[in-house]
Amino acid sequence: MQELEDIGSMASLAAWDEQTYCAVKGREARGQVLATLAAIRHERVVDGAYGEALDELATDGDGLSDDQRAMVRVAKHLHDREARLPADLVRELAEQASRTFRAWLDGRESRDFARYAPELERMLALKVQEADALAYETRYDALLDEYEPGMRTSRLEPILHGLRDELVPFVQRVLERPAPDRSFLDGPFEPEAQLALTRRIVGEVGFDFEAGRQDLSAHPFCSSPSKRDVRLTTRVYDSLEPGALFSSLHEMGHGLYEQGLAARERTAIGRAPSLGLHESQSRFWENQIGRSGPFWQHFLPIAKEAFPAQLGGVDADRFLRAVNRVAADAIRVDADELTYNLHILLRYELERALIDEELAVADLPAAWQAKMEAYLGYTPRDDVEGVMQDIHWSSGGLGYFPTYTLGNLYAAAIGERMRADIEIDEHVAAGDFAPILGWLRERVHSQGFLLPAEDLMQRVTGEPLGHAPFMRYVRAKFGALYGVE
Amino acid sequence: MQELEDIGSMASLAAWDEQTYCAVKGREARGQVLATLAAIRHERVVDGAYGEALDELATDGDGLSDDQRAMVRVAKHLHDREARLPADLVRELAEQASRTFRAWLDGRESRDFARYAPELERMLALKVQEADALAYETRYDALLDEYEPGMRTSRLEPILHGLRDELVPFVQRVLERPAPDRSFLDGPFEPEAQLALTRRIVGEVGFDFEAGRQDLSAHPFCSSPSKRDVRLTTRVYDSLEPGALFSSLHEMGHGLYEQGLAARERTAIGRAPSLGLHESQSRFWENQIGRSGPFWQHFLPIAKEAFPAQLGGVDADRFLRAVNRVAADAIRVDADELTYNLHILLRYELERALIDEELAVADLPAAWQAKMEAYLGYTPRDDVEGVMQDIHWSSGGLGYFPTYTLGNLYAAAIGERMRADIEIDEHVAAGDFAPILGWLRERVHSQGFLLPAEDLMQRVTGEPLGHAPFMRYVRAKFGALYGVE
Repeated sequence: MQELEDIGSMASLAAWDEQTYCAVKGREARGQVLATLAAIRHERVVDGAYGEALDELATDGDGLSDDQRAMVRVAKHLHDREARLPADLVRELAEQASRTFRAWLDGRESRDFARYAPELERMLALKVQEADALAYETRYDALLDEYEPGMRTSRLEPILHGLRDELVPFVQRVLERPAPDRSFLDGPFEPEAQLALTRRIVGEVGFDFEAGRQDLSAHPFCSSPSKRDVRLTTRVYDSLEPGALFSSLHEMGHGLYEQGLAARERTAIGRAPSLGLHESQSRFWENQIGRSGPFWQHFLPIAKEAFPAQLGGVDADRFLRAVNRVAADAIRVDADELTYNLHILLRYELERALIDEELAVADLPAAWQAKMEAYLGYTPRDDVEGVMQDIHWSSGGLGYFPTYTLGNLYAAAIGERMRADIEIDEHVAAGDFAPILGWLRERVHSQGFLLPAEDLMQRVTGEPLGHAPFMRYVRAKFGALYGVE
Repeated sequence: MQELEDIGSMASLAAWDEQTYCAVKGREARGQVLATLAAIRHERVVDGAYGEALDELATDGDGLSDDQRAMVRVAKHLHDREARLPADLVRELAEQASRTFRAWLDGRESRDFARYAPELERMLALKVQEADALAYETRYDALLDEYEPGMRTSRLEPILHGLRDELVPFVQRVLERPAPDRSFLDGPFEPEAQLALTRRIVGEVGFDFEAGRQDLSAHPFCSSPSKRDVRLTTRVYDSLEPGALFSSLHEMGHGLYEQGLAARERTAIGRAPSLGLHESQSRFWENQIGRSGPFWQHFLPIAKEAFPAQLGGVDADRFLRAVNRVAADAIRVDADELTYNLHILLRYELERALIDEELAVADLPAAWQAKMEAYLGYTPRDDVEGVMQDIHWSSGGLGYFPTYTLGNLYAAAIGERMRADIEIDEHVAAGDFAPILGWLRERVHSQGFLLPAEDLMQRVTGEPLGHAPFMRYVRAKFGALYGVE
């Protein structure tokens, strides 16, 4: 298990480096290296003697600690799942991921979906093979389970649709209201000063920069070669939002979770039970804390010191409205808390149709546009604003998108529960984040993968997964900001 | 073979990252990851079926190309060598390397050899085990062969001593002459401007920054996760020398060699035949080119633009004398071309005594001091200036040091031969490095490990390895600079 974790650590570092410091001409070789690592990892995960040992421990777990029992459960699930995959397919998938990623970059640069489509088709064909080999009830289940172990389409879809049915009319009412002024967010804000402010805020909230770092990349992400070496990335523009700050608060949420897993480093349970749960932490810190009044009550004076000309005349209320502006817009990663979930719904429906071979890659741009118009009333100007905006499918990450919405739902449930326990607003307004981080550390981070995601959340929040806490949260927050019910 | 190269690539990246961007608290986990990689690599190198296949191909190589024959020779040498090492020892060595490295850092920081000594003793005990398991004629041979395949102590030592016997009296005569003024090199020179100038010069000489990069680290090195992703590191002080520039020219020499191996990427012969030959390239570019009159005829005006206040009144002759100042000083990496080899001789004699268990780690500081006084007439102020100045032993790199002097000898022989073919000085003075790099690419870089080091050099220079070309080179250069014979 430790060797598997070490190989994962290596892959994490290699992928981080690919997106931060890797030389342009070295990317192809990096793809081969990542494929070799994936092949070595797979070989060890499906090893027969390892599988027998796990079977034995799962059947007769006498003398195992709770942690060890959980390790066996997690490792056995992975072994049983991957044992169904041919080794050649694993390597092909990894190699194709690098090719499709490069074609995606190429397609974006030339603003030409046709440069991307052939490699995406090859990737999709491999994902169909993978899903069929995994042999879940549906192909989509097979893919979803990689990111959200235990989740099934039959459970997910009603939740997404229930959310949609309440959310769409609420978004409509918000969008009918006058949009708040956000022009001051365009600055320009000096990039170096943005990064310095970001680093200060992220550090004050509780990210340990001796056990992590922050670098620049085209697309922000969080990667952890070790739980004591957690790497955030961000990108910086002339604007404050979109910009380095809120994307960093998001990645910091992931990073705090990873740093909080340090006690279980190098074990199969030294990880989040699901990506949705991981995302709950980034959403919680970015949105519920980072886009809240008390947060800017504390940090706006500090931001004004860094940017007196740009922010001098902006009060906390105006700032708050600006960074919570709801808009029917093109780009998922820049979307507000309300429309974000509609971006996800669109992707979920498209990727499900792709994997079920009900939608051809060639028809994807048109299908994308149609759904954007239906859910958001927005028509993308081109495919860079449309189907080529996300990296996920290029690396084979079908089944990943729903975890973002699950993250929003979990975050809302966590926030509701935490608010019953501690005075969040008072602590945040005082710049005292330790009680909040401590609450999360104790109940969520330190639990690792002892329990599956839904079980852990049931225990933390006292409620089953659903969209109700999220709708209560956004109705309260955006209702107040926009004066709607 | 490709998988082995990929694992090597990964290890190279992980080690680079450990010294550049790895979070402080993540270093321990990095050590474990590197140990796991070493174990996986070893497991594959010594694999029985792989060994049989290599045996078969070595016995009956009909139908193999020259390249393939060489690959089999190189891979089989490695297989046969490593098959003698127990897997546990390989892992222990890798794990101990991280521990000893951390103890070395600790010892340096506290300026206390006693903090370093216990881990160095453990490392030495493992190296003795390793050398005995490898079962060469002498223990030192076993270690030397890792870095300088085919070289033996019985051949090396007479060369080192022959060099010493001619060099020591020559150094004495040089040191009796008045030392040139080097005070202007202390600047201060703004670090950012030094790095910009360095990057410009390194790029103009021919390093491809799309297939590589340069970062900062405590100790300069060159690492290549891919031949198209070659990473130089440097460090920068207020002074120009020691500083970023010449250390970068040195690492650039390694980097140009690596980039020149790209055609054989992912094969067992996509590497230098020995570290000595690798070092010949760094020495050649740093010293024979970078510390030559024509080089500064071309670059001094450019350097003056970057540093008008510091260099405005310095002419090329004064600059050249300053950067070729010979001094009996403490630190190997800052040593001039003449005394450098005496630093190496000292280390060679000490590490041979260590591995033969004729010298105890506890007695190392005193032995170091005695030899420094004997060869260089210099007494180290403390162990940071003495035995703790080099990283090598901390990572188990005994047998490595002689490759530096072999590099100097090879570089001199290469320079002499190249000078017979092309007008080096004219090209350098014109800033036209392509003919020089082209000559090296054709005769050295593109050859990879087709031939062992001495065979390749015999073909390139027409002469067997010896110290004569080096002595001719330094007598001519330093004889002129210092007015001695």
